[in-house]
Amino acid sequence: MITVNLLGSGNVGTHLFKAFSNASNVSVNQWYSRNLKSIQSFQNEVSLCDDLSSLDETDILVLAVSDDAVATVSEQLPTTNGLVVHTSGSVNIHDLDKRHRRGVFYPVQTFSKEVTVDFSQVPLCIEALEKDDYQLLKSVASAIGSPSYKISTEQRQYLHVAAVFVNNFSNQMYRIAHEISDGHHINFDILKPLITETAKKVQTVSPYMAQTGPAKRHDKKTIKRHLKLLEDDLHKEIYTLLTDSIKKTHGKKL
Amino acid sequence: MITVNLLGSGNVGTHLFKAFSNASNVSVNQWYSRNLKSIQSFQNEVSLCDDLSSLDETDILVLAVSDDAVATVSEQLPTTNGLVVHTSGSVNIHDLDKRHRRGVFYPVQTFSKEVTVDFSQVPLCIEALEKDDYQLLKSVASAIGSPSYKISTEQRQYLHVAAVFVNNFSNQMYRIAHEISDGHHINFDILKPLITETAKKVQTVSPYMAQTGPAKRHDKKTIKRHLKLLEDDLHKEIYTLLTDSIKKTHGKKL
Repeated sequence: MITVNLLGSGNVGTHLFKAFSNASNVSVNQWYSRNLKSIQSFQNEVSLCDDLSSLDETDILVLAVSDDAVATVSEQLPTTNGLVVHTSGSVNIHDLDKRHRRGVFYPVQTFSKEVTVDFSQVPLCIEALEKDDYQLLKSVASAIGSPSYKISTEQRQYLHVAAVFVNNFSNQMYRIAHEISDGHHINFDILKPLITETAKKVQTVSPYMAQTGPAKRHDKKTIKRHLKLLEDDLHKEIYTLLTDSIKKTHGKKL
Repeated sequence: MITVNLLGSGNVGTHLFKAFSNASNVSVNQWYSRNLKSIQSFQNEVSLCDDLSSLDETDILVLAVSDDAVATVSEQLPTTNGLVVHTSGSVNIHDLDKRHRRGVFYPVQTFSKEVTVDFSQVPLCIEALEKDDYQLLKSVASAIGSPSYKISTEQRQYLHVAAVFVNNFSNQMYRIAHEISDGHHINFDILKPLITETAKKVQTVSPYMAQTGPAKRHDKKTIKRHLKLLEDDLHKEIYTLLTDSIKKTHGKKL
């Protein structure tokens, strides 16, 4: 049995609590939050606390706190033999207080508080300073059914930027499409299956191979007509820049 | 039984042929292609032809030909009592030869020749000059299991631009993420569940509500660090522009 103390009650903390609780060989000993009210509903499932000094000894302490709080919280922890890990995509492993054995357990996924998470669809990027600690984190990932990958702090930073492109920026493409469709009384539902299919395609085919459309075809007539239709200057600018980006990817001169 | 002559053997034509063939109350009478070789393998299922003048009378003639060919092909068709429809996202209904009853049957989806298409996931945008013709096209959509929407030529143009955003531009976001991950020996598989989840979220929640990340949070520190990490000038430019777009959407000053 791997014992864990969990710190933080945001989306990541809450979903990790559920995943750890469901795993047969992981046990959450204490759950810490500055704001006990936010996790009050779990009081019958786990021991809650809001005082770092009252944390007992466990195999792992998981800091699911905001990026800015990682260093401070790790400094304030009591001295422990446990492995202290953070869950952030951008914080350096060395930002954890050096009194501790240190590691990273970064889930690459977007979480909503209300939606149940299938952890088989949550890749975990693992880093540790010691080989045994790396193996321990790999066991935890495996216990909650997640695939895991060995990722250095430097790689993790790049992964975090890449995640902004596939998550925040793709979502903004959907948003702009929503603005366009709403502006012309077109039901946004019409575009939903296309959104699904576009994401599905790159699960088996590279984004390079999956590309289609006027930019890739270098179809100047359609591009010109689209630019004329777009009413928002920022939409025009985005259309032009991303069309250039696709042309560059597919070997066309800008 | 609704009888159809199908013209064109590209992705759309081929998938429509299969959908029509599977529908119990639609029958494909003839399949026309300039290049008979490309549909030779279907010769036992349907009568093939490469001569427009040999087309028999049917209820509907579906022109699944390239945008540029719609007007010409519709002019070269023999005079018919059938309803002549094109399948393009951008061609005006009036570009069809005015000798004919005219309509549009535009599937909003991305097709690959090899991949089987589930037509319940292919919204059909329907337009016709006559009410009865509109009803006829609605019946065909329903026969192949597709949801259908009444969309005017003008709306269809906007829908086509919006489709470029959710399909081509989202895919380019995946491509850039792939470039970043490849450049740092990071397995692109790590990002695939996030791509799926991002597309899944907006099936039930608006893209506005689904947005997260540094741009929405106005997290200047992370944005600055990301821009420093990005090595490609075009990636930097895209990051900056889309960050501005998200800030604008979420009411932050640029």
